[in-house]
Amino acid sequence: MTQKLSSRQVRERIAKSPFLETIGARLERTQPDGVTLACRFRDDLRNVFGGLHGGVAATLADAAAAFAIQRHFGGVRSMATVEMKINYFLPVREGVLRARARLLRAGNTLCVAAVELSDSQGRATGAALVTYMLLKP
Amino acid sequence: MTQKLSSRQVRERIAKSPFLETIGARLERTQPDGVTLACRFRDDLRNVFGGLHGGVAATLADAAAAFAIQRHFGGVRSMATVEMKINYFLPVREGVLRARARLLRAGNTLCVAAVELSDSQGRATGAALVTYMLLKP
Amino acid sequence: MTQKLSSRQVRERIAKSPFLETIGARLERTQPDGVTLACRFRDDLRNVFGGLHGGVAATLADAAAAFAIQRHFGGVRSMATVEMKINYFLPVREGVLRARARLLRAGNTLCVAAVELSDSQGRATGAALVTYMLLKP
Amino acid sequence: MTQKLSSRQVRERIAKSPFLETIGARLERTQPDGVTLACRFRDDLRNVFGGLHGGVAATLADAAAAFAIQRHFGGVRSMATVEMKINYFLPVREGVLRARARLLRAGNTLCVAAVELSDSQGRATGAALVTYMLLKP
Repeated sequence: MTQKLSSRQVRERIAKSPFLETIGARLERTQPDGVTLACRFRDDLRNVFGGLHGGVAATLADAAAAFAIQRHFGGVRSMATVEMKINYFLPVREGVLRARARLLRAGNTLCVAAVELSDSQGRATGAALVTYMLLKP
Repeated sequence: MTQKLSSRQVRERIAKSPFLETIGARLERTQPDGVTLACRFRDDLRNVFGGLHGGVAATLADAAAAFAIQRHFGGVRSMATVEMKINYFLPVREGVLRARARLLRAGNTLCVAAVELSDSQGRATGAALVTYMLLKP
Repeated sequence: MTQKLSSRQVRERIAKSPFLETIGARLERTQPDGVTLACRFRDDLRNVFGGLHGGVAATLADAAAAFAIQRHFGGVRSMATVEMKINYFLPVREGVLRARARLLRAGNTLCVAAVELSDSQGRATGAALVTYMLLKP
Repeated sequence: MTQKLSSRQVRERIAKSPFLETIGARLERTQPDGVTLACRFRDDLRNVFGGLHGGVAATLADAAAAFAIQRHFGGVRSMATVEMKINYFLPVREGVLRARARLLRAGNTLCVAAVELSDSQGRATGAALVTYMLLKP
């Protein structure tokens, strides 16, 4: 049976993903069915209206889904994002944005994770569904 | 009748959006039905596999849709991203990523734009549908 | 405070939706945060490969989301589907398809529900996110 | 080189898809990059508000995308819907709903088509992106 990725291993992989470093994404915790990533509000991550840019939330959701899948397979599989769908409920203007990803489907070729986005007050700020394709070794 | 945003006005608005500055997004051209934004491959925009992070493409698609809509309304409307959907076809490993947004629907409350993503060789690298809500003045 | 729709009221509304009658959708149960609809496999609901057509699953997910929202508002609000996103995990070839919808966001204008699709064996067969707009009275 | 599916062959395949028969979907025309399907408004396809149910539009968009892909590959490939995303712009209350599908990406494993939905007056009523997976022979 595949050994799941440890928190340390997820952190190492985040550190090797330059754009996740650029936005300041970090692992908050792992769960049996996924992971929670977080990202702190910063001025250079804002949109023209002063809130966190939707692209930051999309990046964090994409990454949380990726690590939920990588964690399941022990991180030994190469993969590519197929598509993502994201809904935004509320703007984030301070504090932390969290992305809690749950693995919904681990197929031979395609994997799907659901992501809940929330802010420092615990309010739901968005939701996403992300599909990844496992590449041949 | 509303005066459409000029290229200069779109550029001013991009310059006021810190996260678009962070990823190096710029206006390439305007069209009667939309705009084309572009973003150059940089090391700090990569994912763990060495390609441009999907979140960069999502950010560029979101912004291109926003400016296609803002341009239509002359930039006088405040608005918020409702949701986006994006498909990734091919990785981008060098050169430029372009996002060509076309306004599909300009409603009283909701606006939708379609975005085609392409690389320096003109290959289709992805596609998106983005929904924005116009806020009350 | 708004009285939630009862199971009887949801059933009455399903009966007034001709296309839901056409596919044989029925209410299975209500939950504090949503509803579960179900639909039995029938030959006239198949695709060319012999499984339940994806459009049936999309219809059931759309309807489950609608009733999760209607139930929350007591069914007094007129509304329209803005968009939906659906992932298919496994084909359904017999028995029952269930759609469990949870209200994620009840805004002044937009409401979003997440839907889990499952088959008679309880396997996850798909997932959806559905956005509805509340219309002015 | 693969021979594209003829109009006659697309019609034969529609006739073998029971749910497409149930909603009355038919081929309107083929194009070099896709197909246009259509479906006539009928009372049993309505939602509770009297318009064509969103699930009918989703089914038609899904099928148009499928035939745009099947046509490209000459109809020799078995495939499954991976996911779809659909935006609704306007209700359809009479006449015909058309779904014009264009193949955007034909990969070795995944194919994506964009669909434009329109009504009898030629108004855009919605848009979709649909992903199919080609199955191993």
